[in-house]
Amino acid sequence: MAVYTDITDEELAALLADYDLGQAVSLKGVAEGIENSNFLLETEAGRFFLTIYERRVKAADLPFFLELLRWIAAHGFPSATPIADREGRILRSVRGKPCAIVSFLPGLAARRPTAAHCREAGAGLAALHLAAEGFPLTRANDLGQAAWAPMFASLELAAEALKPGLAKTISFDLEQLAARWPKDLPQGVIHADFFPDNVFFAQGKFAGAIDFYFACVDAFAYDIAVALNAWCFEPDGSFNITCARALVAGYESRRRLSDLERSALPILAHGAAIRFFLTRLHDWGATPAGALVRPKDPLEYERKLAVHRASPDLVLFGAPA
Amino acid sequence: MAVYTDITDEELAALLADYDLGQAVSLKGVAEGIENSNFLLETEAGRFFLTIYERRVKAADLPFFLELLRWIAAHGFPSATPIADREGRILRSVRGKPCAIVSFLPGLAARRPTAAHCREAGAGLAALHLAAEGFPLTRANDLGQAAWAPMFASLELAAEALKPGLAKTISFDLEQLAARWPKDLPQGVIHADFFPDNVFFAQGKFAGAIDFYFACVDAFAYDIAVALNAWCFEPDGSFNITCARALVAGYESRRRLSDLERSALPILAHGAAIRFFLTRLHDWGATPAGALVRPKDPLEYERKLAVHRASPDLVLFGAPA
Repeated sequence: MAVYTDITDEELAALLADYDLGQAVSLKGVAEGIENSNFLLETEAGRFFLTIYERRVKAADLPFFLELLRWIAAHGFPSATPIADREGRILRSVRGKPCAIVSFLPGLAARRPTAAHCREAGAGLAALHLAAEGFPLTRANDLGQAAWAPMFASLELAAEALKPGLAKTISFDLEQLAARWPKDLPQGVIHADFFPDNVFFAQGKFAGAIDFYFACVDAFAYDIAVALNAWCFEPDGSFNITCARALVAGYESRRRLSDLERSALPILAHGAAIRFFLTRLHDWGATPAGALVRPKDPLEYERKLAVHRASPDLVLFGAPA
Repeated sequence: MAVYTDITDEELAALLADYDLGQAVSLKGVAEGIENSNFLLETEAGRFFLTIYERRVKAADLPFFLELLRWIAAHGFPSATPIADREGRILRSVRGKPCAIVSFLPGLAARRPTAAHCREAGAGLAALHLAAEGFPLTRANDLGQAAWAPMFASLELAAEALKPGLAKTISFDLEQLAARWPKDLPQGVIHADFFPDNVFFAQGKFAGAIDFYFACVDAFAYDIAVALNAWCFEPDGSFNITCARALVAGYESRRRLSDLERSALPILAHGAAIRFFLTRLHDWGATPAGALVRPKDPLEYERKLAVHRASPDLVLFGAPA
């Protein structure tokens, strides 16, 4: 949850004066998104989200994210669309920080996803991959496989402090992943953070996705691997094969996986678990006291890593035969 | 900002099943109110606030707060009204904690109140005092003058740690306040926490108040004194007499102060500053690491106390001659 940057009523009025949205009726800081300051903004024209981008989002990446939102919305994917001001700008600034107003996306996140949610989420993820086809901008996955070893170099002590012996285990993981990481999978725009709290449902049906601030061009199947980690583990740490099967089947109801993609899922899921383990480990140490964000526990992903190491084929059972 | 208790989509659906509000369309944890978990809830019937009451609010006090909201709304004061379920209950529970659904109150808080805001706020405060007239329930001010000395007994070390010599100064304040505290002022239901972030405006006009969880029966003029502290100090710590004058004049446009009330404002303002100093000092030490609330700086109120000590008549200049 996050509201790092406040905005005064005067600053808001000055910003809105450049839009055709009328005057502000209400503004609520919302506990959503951990990277930015988010406000639910009601104006005379309706409801919107005002996002103020904080340091972790690179300003140079914002055109990619915002144009992507515009593109996928125009191509039928339910997501928040950036609203342009009267001069056509979708990226503005407030208090020296970039900001944007996007449309309000209704829907409820599934706090405890069922297999039915996983099927819908999988179908939604495929719909996103298809809607983004042809999007002309590109952005490398700066948290992709090539980034993990350099990232870990500064986190070895933190890993060891978390659990003795863990640094060596992770180093071995990274070697294995580097040696076996698949390079020739079909690529395109992926969400790269397709977690349950970023996916909305309406009456049990997929209703859209938010938080595209890790979106990039990478293997489509890697996006599924991120989702398998995020949606298909039980609170006790066990992998829920029924949920995984439903997620992949939902995905394949919209976009068929090739044999190459399917057989890559175990190593991709192992890698995706490394990616979230590493960023959580980093945030665990780096979050300043008094921050309004409670860092997420890196051990949750350490436990998932153990499952991928011990039973790499588990996630394959999620794929229909 | 605060969301202490999460609520799953299933728990929300189960709760809403007892109301005539249709199904949930969206739910956002909001950064508003520091005592409770607050969610902006949209259902098929419109927008509402769902509040889950946390430990700091005594369950026994909730009927007073919720019935008060219902009463003042019925008597023309713009505030969030509790919504009853099909059996007429306005107080429910979720995860073993009390909760309530109230109507959504539009409006924007003034982040940097001007004299015009202060005048409107003063008029709004008087309107609240008048709307609550005849409300049959009662609740003592458990953070009133009688509570300060016992409260301070456990905070002397914290005060001294904050600023050497401060414990003695506060002790002297408390003696003075106990000796001179006015007892015969007109009383009624007061808000007791009428701060700028609890007051909404629409196009510059008073549009309502929220967060009635300190409301109680006490002197009306004490509510003005709380507001003078909260609305009429500049960021540099100086007292803005223009704002104070506007606030009191706004109040008196709806409810005339007696001479006794007006002449009591300096000591009431001094006392109100003590009350917020003490609770902030308490929260400063008591907030657990990792809490999602940033405690408010007690030194802000220590500086206000210094103003009241040095120039007790300053707030009187706020009253029209």
